[in-house]
Amino acid sequence: MSDRPKSIEICEKGPREGLQIEKAIIPTERKIALIDALSETGLKQIQICSFVDARRVPGWADVDAVVAGFKPRDGVRYSPLWLNEKGLERALQYKDRLSFRDAILMSASEPFLIRNQNSDSKKNAERQHNFVTILKENGIASESALIQAAFGCNFAGDIPVATLISTIQQAFDIANEHSITLKRVSLNDTMAWATPDTVKAAVGAIRERWPSLRVNLHFHNTRGLGIANVYAGLEMGVDSYDSSVAGLGGCPFAGHKGAAGNVCTEDIVFLCDELGISTGIDIDKLIAAAHLAEDVVGHALPGSIMRGGPLKQLREKLQ
Amino acid sequence: MSDRPKSIEICEKGPREGLQIEKAIIPTERKIALIDALSETGLKQIQICSFVDARRVPGWADVDAVVAGFKPRDGVRYSPLWLNEKGLERALQYKDRLSFRDAILMSASEPFLIRNQNSDSKKNAERQHNFVTILKENGIASESALIQAAFGCNFAGDIPVATLISTIQQAFDIANEHSITLKRVSLNDTMAWATPDTVKAAVGAIRERWPSLRVNLHFHNTRGLGIANVYAGLEMGVDSYDSSVAGLGGCPFAGHKGAAGNVCTEDIVFLCDELGISTGIDIDKLIAAAHLAEDVVGHALPGSIMRGGPLKQLREKLQ
Repeated sequence: MSDRPKSIEICEKGPREGLQIEKAIIPTERKIALIDALSETGLKQIQICSFVDARRVPGWADVDAVVAGFKPRDGVRYSPLWLNEKGLERALQYKDRLSFRDAILMSASEPFLIRNQNSDSKKNAERQHNFVTILKENGIASESALIQAAFGCNFAGDIPVATLISTIQQAFDIANEHSITLKRVSLNDTMAWATPDTVKAAVGAIRERWPSLRVNLHFHNTRGLGIANVYAGLEMGVDSYDSSVAGLGGCPFAGHKGAAGNVCTEDIVFLCDELGISTGIDIDKLIAAAHLAEDVVGHALPGSIMRGGPLKQLREKLQ
Repeated sequence: MSDRPKSIEICEKGPREGLQIEKAIIPTERKIALIDALSETGLKQIQICSFVDARRVPGWADVDAVVAGFKPRDGVRYSPLWLNEKGLERALQYKDRLSFRDAILMSASEPFLIRNQNSDSKKNAERQHNFVTILKENGIASESALIQAAFGCNFAGDIPVATLISTIQQAFDIANEHSITLKRVSLNDTMAWATPDTVKAAVGAIRERWPSLRVNLHFHNTRGLGIANVYAGLEMGVDSYDSSVAGLGGCPFAGHKGAAGNVCTEDIVFLCDELGISTGIDIDKLIAAAHLAEDVVGHALPGSIMRGGPLKQLREKLQ
């Protein structure tokens, strides 16, 4: 337990991951209401939207109105997703309201890159160079990389740790060419192949190679291991996690009908509260936001603590 | 990782936990179909029914027909639940078909005992003496105890490890008076208070006090930590777990509307398959039983792997 972090950062992905995959189009003001509710919880990072082709992802046809409409709160970093130069240029119109992390987007699986981004490693590297260049021109240093399919891929199988490491090295190489040193890498378990053991192996190997590189973990709960994987990450000292309020979301491109959303934000906060790890998040406000998320999408979401309730009130009532 | 067991035993609780709480009465032949399907999966222990007051639990008014009707499979242990002497006597009519484990039923929380069993510690101890006596008269040694509310209680709060240990000691004392030595204790997290840390603390303390006592863990997923708690148990070397196919069930007496079923059997089997821990269970047959369970209850159940699918087939397809 000595490796455990004292505190963690959570990057909320619910609005971006969750609101695009609903069959019904969600009204702009409801998206904004959810973002504004999340802003009040103590979360310091919220990915709020995607600048993507509205013909491909009609759920984000209103991205401009969402970004213009939400109330930014001091100290909270709001980020967009983009997949190509046009998307990035569109997002940069709002650079006074948005934060640009995870600028270098790699995949540890080439087959996934081909299917998901209609690209290959070479084309993707060129595109990432372009992103870094465009961001630099806007005064933004791309110090964070995101590795998709970091643990396994439905089209390539298990990802060996060596492949993950060489993918991260490629991200370093891209950053280096622009005289930037990567400070953070996000390991995204895009298709839910991670297990507590593969999490520990991957984090251990990264620590050995790049001791000061900050690791972020991003799990989907498709195979039910999300919270166990987070626990394994905590045991390895990882202090940064992506998650999704109420478990909103799922990846429409993963070629897998059972794909679930990210591990649930309030369930991670509950785990950390119980383990004595600080998140800076008010779990009651977060649970209220989770219920709002259910109301916004109009159906039940998979979060547990929003139904089971945290233990804090029970303890207080009994004192 | 050196403490990890090479193999584990799973006791399936779905039929007993899950079928009694449904609003609609489930036809007897559907209950039997589910039990028979579970018998084919490689499970070695299945708790199939409750001998309880049919006025209180109408879902088990047909318990005799269920016990008489299922097809016992060689090598599988089928067990009933009972809560009082009358229930045990009724169950013992079927002692050629049923197995009687967890005979000594204790609670680490007296308030829970009062609310759940309309009893107190003293009355409960007397009742447990009666159970052991009745079983002994039937040639059955009660070598297993079950501790309810082992980690916490909605009516008593956190259960200190010392309280858990003294509750287990009381079970030893009851067994000793009948010249029986307890071989196994089940820690039941009846109201979902356990966390990976409290699991490790409890198991560690039991190991220190009774090194050869076998520990079984029973988690409910009400607060989303079920699979993380199982993982913590595996790290502590615990080789016996209760679980529920598809996550069937919930405790109608826990005074908690958000109460969820046991951690899901096929999700545990998937975790163990991935960690290289043998369960003896065919995950594909178990997933088929999970889908049958959904069909029997007529609504979605919370299991993940039944929807997300295990990785085995994906790996085979890619080879």
